Amino acid sequence: MKYWQLPQAVEEVLPEQASALEALRRELLDLYKHWGYELVFPPLIEYSESLLTGLGADLDLLTFKLTDQLTGRTLGIRADITPQVARIDAHSYLKRGVSRLCYAGTTLHTRPKSLMASRCPIQVGAELYGDSSEQADIEIIRLLIETLRTSGVGALTLDIGHVGVYQAVFAAADIDQDDTDIFDALQRKSAPDLAVALQDKPAQTREWLTALMNMHGDIDTLDRARQTFGSSVPAVSQAIDQIETVIKALSAVAHDIDWYVDLAELRGLNYHTGLVFAAYAKGAGQALANGGRYDSVGQIYGRARAATGFAVDLKTLLAQGRYKANSQGAISVPAIMDTKLESLINDLRASGQIVIRALLNEHDERCDREIVLIDDVWTVRPIGKTNV
Amino acid sequence: MKYWQLPQAVEEVLPEQASALEALRRELLDLYKHWGYELVFPPLIEYSESLLTGLGADLDLLTFKLTDQLTGRTLGIRADITPQVARIDAHSYLKRGVSRLCYAGTTLHTRPKSLMASRCPIQVGAELYGDSSEQADIEIIRLLIETLRTSGVGALTLDIGHVGVYQAVFAAADIDQDDTDIFDALQRKSAPDLAVALQDKPAQTREWLTALMNMHGDIDTLDRARQTFGSSVPAVSQAIDQIETVIKALSAVAHDIDWYVDLAELRGLNYHTGLVFAAYAKGAGQALANGGRYDSVGQIYGRARAATGFAVDLKTLLAQGRYKANSQGAISVPAIMDTKLESLINDLRASGQIVIRALLNEHDERCDREIVLIDDVWTVRPIGKTNV
Repeated sequence: MKYWQLPQAVEEVLPEQASALEALRRELLDLYKHWGYELVFPPLIEYSESLLTGLGADLDLLTFKLTDQLTGRTLGIRADITPQVARIDAHSYLKRGVSRLCYAGTTLHTRPKSLMASRCPIQVGAELYGDSSEQADIEIIRLLIETLRTSGVGALTLDIGHVGVYQAVFAAADIDQDDTDIFDALQRKSAPDLAVALQDKPAQTREWLTALMNMHGDIDTLDRARQTFGSSVPAVSQAIDQIETVIKALSAVAHDIDWYVDLAELRGLNYHTGLVFAAYAKGAGQALANGGRYDSVGQIYGRARAATGFAVDLKTLLAQGRYKANSQGAISVPAIMDTKLESLINDLRASGQIVIRALLNEHDERCDREIVLIDDVWTVRPIGKTNV
Repeated sequence: MKYWQLPQAVEEVLPEQASALEALRRELLDLYKHWGYELVFPPLIEYSESLLTGLGADLDLLTFKLTDQLTGRTLGIRADITPQVARIDAHSYLKRGVSRLCYAGTTLHTRPKSLMASRCPIQVGAELYGDSSEQADIEIIRLLIETLRTSGVGALTLDIGHVGVYQAVFAAADIDQDDTDIFDALQRKSAPDLAVALQDKPAQTREWLTALMNMHGDIDTLDRARQTFGSSVPAVSQAIDQIETVIKALSAVAHDIDWYVDLAELRGLNYHTGLVFAAYAKGAGQALANGGRYDSVGQIYGRARAATGFAVDLKTLLAQGRYKANSQGAISVPAIMDTKLESLINDLRASGQIVIRALLNEHDERCDREIVLIDDVWTVRPIGKTNV
């Protein structure tokens, strides 16, 4: 055992990356603030029942469990912050009407969510409560787009869907939403498996479900869905109208987005209730952000509320490599006590300069300037060939 | 079970406090940056052996343990960040000469460290490696003083000691440092217990240890220590000279500090190696900050280094109630799409204003101004009696 060894998929962030991470964190929280989102810091641990109800049921396997020495009860370390924020909106911070909340914090996962993922991502996100209209979806997706722009991500693909589509199709075809054979086949988009799972079903059901499996692609997908389900399954039309409204509004303000409509997407089906979306850097396979509507999740915490939001992982955004913090030189100063020198140092630091005392009579390697006494005046000059 | 209930000594931070906490966090990290301290983010979990060696041995009972599903090994959730930073200096970020590192992050404690303490404090601190001279101690204590000033803490008491004093006295008196009876009595400053623990010892030992127990008070304590131990225990003189050098240098730049010398302080004796200190708001019983020298802790991670530093808890600093974030009004804007309106909103947000779309046709309660169309121009005006 090497004492310096870190667990797999657990990383430390060293100065260069850390200053970029901190700068991006601040830029994003400032962005949310200027859009009216209020910052909250939910705690790192809660009773596991609280973390894993409502939104959290999918998170059980990802969540580290601990025993509370004070009560003997089971604690969980949050694997996601969204359920905590929903709890705050429902119980702790009872705003009348619309509430906008944002957050940034570390989460822990028992296993990496994907091959390259960290087990300690830094989740940043924004949530909007109290408005069930498309206006709320539009605002949240715009804020997501701004988030990715701020992070330096270039051309974006936005994947958009609506859980109302498959819910309506399943209901019209009288299929149980817990039918895992059908679900698995749809999720894997496997035509042969779907055919087997549907073999005892009526022709109409087989036709609908097979069509649903292929309902993804460009914006024309919406028309295809209307033609296939429109007259027979009215709820599909409502969902499609919502998607169309959102895409239209966003296209007016964000021009460089590639839209990808996916009505067969079953991600998050346990808790999502409406429009869902994911953002990709164009051509990338791994989503940079996920979000969507999760109305009524707050009920278990005290009040049911319309809800939509998104989350990103700061480490993933930084790994894109497009966001750079400003690097800054530093000023070396002799490690002596002198009133005038102290006053100059204070002024320089207050103006944003990095001033480093030359302990052991050596300049820190970041220093490109030094303070020296010239004609009895403390003066900043470039570091020349002479040492301190 | 109420799903919204939080575990004992675990708290969420709601908007008003959260924005103050975020503002103070940024001010402190900026302060450290301007002093040349480089930011690092060590991970929330590590193998527990790594967390609990070196500096960490005292932390065992405070540290939550988990099983790593990937390896079956035991992980710990950090209860302190200092050992992680020492590991980074010793293994991951190998700077030649002096290295200055700082950090901010959540830690977890199995139990609250004191009656009012949180089990999820937000630890912020700075560490200086590679210089064993008093110059490093002076810089670190100055930075601590600046930290508390930035946090709005008023008059300060600085408690200063040196583990070299009791080490030298114990060595001279031939007492084992593991003699828990003597240690406990000293730590509780209990004269009767100390008399019992020392009853079989020579008169000189009894005299020295009893004197040591009372070696605390104002700066004159240093003279008393010199008189008692000076000629017989030379190492005590060296430690006292160091304390004196540090107090003298700091008094020249920080005038409103009350110094309290405590040579009998045994806190952190397992890992501290030199000058130790704690800061209190004048008259308060609970320390706001602790720190001191812990040379050679990095050895187990790869290199032994001179080391000194301090840590504070952001939540404790905020609980002092002296630090307030600026509160800021907001501008309400109709939830419509209009190119000129969008352009105005973007400009306002970029200039630091909070602009909130009036979803559901209602102003957010923070709004004191609104944007309205006057003579075909989008205009910001105070919110009057008319609603949106």
